[in-house]
Amino acid sequence: MSGKTVKIGVVLSGCGVYDGAEIHESVLTLLAISRHGAEAVCYAPNIPQHHVINHLTGVETGETRNVLVESARIARGSIHDLAQFDVAEVDALVFPGGFGAAKNLSSFAFEGAGCTVNPQVAAAINAMVAAGKPVGALCIAPAVLAKVLGGVELTIGQDAGTAAALEALGARHKKSLQGEVVVDREKRIVTTPCYMLESTVAQIADGADNAIRTILELVG
Amino acid sequence: MSGKTVKIGVVLSGCGVYDGAEIHESVLTLLAISRHGAEAVCYAPNIPQHHVINHLTGVETGETRNVLVESARIARGSIHDLAQFDVAEVDALVFPGGFGAAKNLSSFAFEGAGCTVNPQVAAAINAMVAAGKPVGALCIAPAVLAKVLGGVELTIGQDAGTAAALEALGARHKKSLQGEVVVDREKRIVTTPCYMLESTVAQIADGADNAIRTILELVG
Repeated sequence: MSGKTVKIGVVLSGCGVYDGAEIHESVLTLLAISRHGAEAVCYAPNIPQHHVINHLTGVETGETRNVLVESARIARGSIHDLAQFDVAEVDALVFPGGFGAAKNLSSFAFEGAGCTVNPQVAAAINAMVAAGKPVGALCIAPAVLAKVLGGVELTIGQDAGTAAALEALGARHKKSLQGEVVVDREKRIVTTPCYMLESTVAQIADGADNAIRTILELVG
Repeated sequence: MSGKTVKIGVVLSGCGVYDGAEIHESVLTLLAISRHGAEAVCYAPNIPQHHVINHLTGVETGETRNVLVESARIARGSIHDLAQFDVAEVDALVFPGGFGAAKNLSSFAFEGAGCTVNPQVAAAINAMVAAGKPVGALCIAPAVLAKVLGGVELTIGQDAGTAAALEALGARHKKSLQGEVVVDREKRIVTTPCYMLESTVAQIADGADNAIRTILELVG
């Protein structure tokens, strides 16, 4: 890829840990992409959020919000409808975590191994793997990859119940600690636990940076 | 302060560049605080946002949102009502930017030098300066400090119109480039331009890190 800027797609799922994309993981993914001289291209599905959570109280509100519109807050307006995703336009794809991955991109938060995945999200993941391009996922987002890809090696950290649900989908779960990255070299899948473990903001930055650096090595 | 963790208050103004706290500047301030081994304590006023902007289209929506509730998204729920602010509990105070500083914490976006500042915000700034504790501000947030403190040396980057409005308030504006910090050593005020200049995410991280490091030097 020498001489050509590597483009990394970043799929957001809203704006806030309890009903959307986890904000620290999202921004620190964008930071890692910037630090390594690559270019971030943000996407989100143009669908309603599953629900809206008041992040001060943890209580569901009666509001309706749109995943693409709220994700645009993290992207400062520079974001595309995931319906426009074209595998030819990116060298890699990354999914930050947050409940949005498990509530908006999929129904994993409610249905575990029996979940469904948004068809545009599933199509993007399958197209990347078919093209031999790396896909990364942080925090709980590896659950989406497990549902779509089945037999894949990945990590969500240490939580036994979540790991069991991923293994019920055919995935091979490897335990990991803060900042560590698990790589499936055959399918070119890179995962790191982030806030699935009690972490400082600096540890989240380390995990995002390690994931992006590994993805860039796979891009070659 | 040796042996004691330095606490830095972070005053948020919503969640999104166009109607709240700029998300990258906020998260990268939290990252810098974490990297330097200090502790962030987030605050926001419990007031309605001035308005809600769709960050995909730039158009005002008819929604109503609360500054404290939306700021809680950036803080992952760990945030205090600014009404509870006690100068004795923090060693320094920082204001990330975004239009929230100029629309919710003050009316600078609409009234320029004739703006008003939220009374809790003004009280917190005055209490910090009276106690000899440093105050930082990123991006457009220095406008709030200019309105409250008058004769203070600061920067918002290069924009002549904004600089003139700050000088009309009695401030001394110093031009700055990406990542640079301007320090008023008498009043212990630290400012950096962030997204007031065209910047990469990595440059925003550098600016936030330089500001926090300078603040920690002033804390001593």
